Amino acid sequence: MEKTDCIFCKIIKGEIPSHKLYEDEFFIAVLDLNPAAYGHTLIISKSHHENLLDLGDTAGANFIKAAQMVARAVIAATEAESFNLIQNNGNFAGQTVFHFHAHIVPRKQIDGLNFSWIAKSAPKGFMLEMTEKITRELNP
Amino acid sequence: MEKTDCIFCKIIKGEIPSHKLYEDEFFIAVLDLNPAAYGHTLIISKSHHENLLDLGDTAGANFIKAAQMVARAVIAATEAESFNLIQNNGNFAGQTVFHFHAHIVPRKQIDGLNFSWIAKSAPKGFMLEMTEKITRELNP
Repeated sequence: MEKTDCIFCKIIKGEIPSHKLYEDEFFIAVLDLNPAAYGHTLIISKSHHENLLDLGDTAGANFIKAAQMVARAVIAATEAESFNLIQNNGNFAGQTVFHFHAHIVPRKQIDGLNFSWIAKSAPKGFMLEMTEKITRELNP
Repeated sequence: MEKTDCIFCKIIKGEIPSHKLYEDEFFIAVLDLNPAAYGHTLIISKSHHENLLDLGDTAGANFIKAAQMVARAVIAATEAESFNLIQNNGNFAGQTVFHFHAHIVPRKQIDGLNFSWIAKSAPKGFMLEMTEKITRELNP
């Protein structure tokens, strides 16, 4: 289950060098070459899945365990106090490599990063309408 | 496994109203009251865990399945093309409620959001040193 022109499949196969940190049956972790912070690590599925929605059940069930292990090690090694797990799906979400991966970004008090947002107004009628719409999708 | 002064524990127990979208054995999903985009949804663990590192194995193994179901419904309901999964751990990562939760943010082409970063320089020697440090934490 690989895609021949996929850079992450090539990293998995060892055809492109990487700074590999971790490997289990379903995932590898490597340092991000364009880090938001030093120690910024990618967790990449070993099989080719385009994004979170395509990740199979068995890999999915093992993802958090891998993320926990990797995040603990990244935090300890970078002496960070906090971390973000960021996982982008699709062009408009900033996904650039279309092979499932998650970012572990270690965070410190003053690091110049900002992944927050300005909250949109959420009028009650609108929230109720959105609740109905999403609930309908979940219970077709 | 609840914490009496925790706002998310109160939402789980129904003591604080919410726009609930989804519920399974381990997680609920509700609309975020301070949305980055319309349809922005939180997946919250039903038991009180401070963050990702405290999430137990059983809940962890079921997280991706819940995230996939919720994300599919949010995307369909909002007619979004993409989505981010963002999960903050600790003060300096922007975590404000210290009870495990993940954000599903539906994304469209022009939505004014930006969760990206300016890449730091990653000199090879530094990357090798970081690889050694993190690998040592993973294999003590």
